Amino acid sequence: MDVYEALYTTRAMRRVRPDPIPTEVQDRILDAAIRAPSGGNMQQWRFLLVTDRDQVARIAPHYRAAIDFLWDTIYADRLAAVDADPDAPESRQLAAIKRSVDWAAANFETYPLLFFAFDRGDTTGGSIFPAVWSAMLAARAEGVGSSLTTILAVKADEVLEILGVPADKGWRMVCCVPMGYPLGRWGVAKRRPAHEVAYRDRWGEPLGREIPEPLWSPGA
Amino acid sequence: MDVYEALYTTRAMRRVRPDPIPTEVQDRILDAAIRAPSGGNMQQWRFLLVTDRDQVARIAPHYRAAIDFLWDTIYADRLAAVDADPDAPESRQLAAIKRSVDWAAANFETYPLLFFAFDRGDTTGGSIFPAVWSAMLAARAEGVGSSLTTILAVKADEVLEILGVPADKGWRMVCCVPMGYPLGRWGVAKRRPAHEVAYRDRWGEPLGREIPEPLWSPGA
Repeated sequence: MDVYEALYTTRAMRRVRPDPIPTEVQDRILDAAIRAPSGGNMQQWRFLLVTDRDQVARIAPHYRAAIDFLWDTIYADRLAAVDADPDAPESRQLAAIKRSVDWAAANFETYPLLFFAFDRGDTTGGSIFPAVWSAMLAARAEGVGSSLTTILAVKADEVLEILGVPADKGWRMVCCVPMGYPLGRWGVAKRRPAHEVAYRDRWGEPLGREIPEPLWSPGA
Repeated sequence: MDVYEALYTTRAMRRVRPDPIPTEVQDRILDAAIRAPSGGNMQQWRFLLVTDRDQVARIAPHYRAAIDFLWDTIYADRLAAVDADPDAPESRQLAAIKRSVDWAAANFETYPLLFFAFDRGDTTGGSIFPAVWSAMLAARAEGVGSSLTTILAVKADEVLEILGVPADKGWRMVCCVPMGYPLGRWGVAKRRPAHEVAYRDRWGEPLGREIPEPLWSPGA
């Protein structure tokens, strides 16, 4: 797969089938992840591939509790705005995200693979998220959908206990990436155009050109 | 370019030529970046493409001061270990990184493009580093080398002033990615094998297979 196709079409894919991901495919995803850069090439990372049904089932209620917390706190105002004006474009987008996340919560036990990432000694995320995103791009190339969530941090104590993580040695759970073969379709996700979120030389100065449409599209 | 080639060969490329990067290439790098996911698809990001020679020159002394700080503090013990045993494999690796970073410090004014990323409201890095890494992968596909650094945080006040960043509105400088056409060669960077940094189902449990060599290699 061309790198641009992967970069443009690796969107959050939460609705996936329960079919297992072959071990060779898992290997390619994992081996791609560890090629990413890390500060000073220290590779202070660990990856945990959870495929055991009992382990996934133990984590599921904590994911649901974390999502309930998310809706009730961080997203409470935005969801109230959705209720107040459900037809506004932002409302429809957020409602779609909520339906997708609620699907993940309701069906968490069926994810064939949970890909966890941990780091140590660098809290910027800059030494672990490139590896995580590489795993998701490699998964895309393999036809495997994924979505990144950091929300399990809300239930870190419980999840670290289930996974046996030695937090006392400095290891920190960075994120969980549920993976599986998609029920939905790949596509280019909607984004605010590049020239609206980019400046030239100094904050607020125009980029110098407009990029109203994605520069890559399927079949182009 | 195949996505696996990009994932395996996008290594830190600090030694680059001063030749400018054409605007269309910059557009493709930037437009790929904004296709990355962010929490709740909030896209609370801004990108600043610095190509103006005066702006780059203003930032250069702060990069040099930040690197001096790095060697004198965070890396002091490791560099002392290099001096004590220069032929140890870890020493040779760290010495190579130091030479490369010192090249960047000495030649900072010659970088044709500094790609800065900023975020707001999410301090995990999970809503910005995928976009940054996408930019670096797209750059790789365009033949442009890059390296990611968060060290300018040490001189944040000075750099934010030069760039005119409204930090009072919550914007945070995440990283700086100097880019340019490479002087060196692309290649698969050396990494600890995947099975040594990955577990199955529970921390410390073996992955179940060994992956001693990279699963992708040039020409394979």
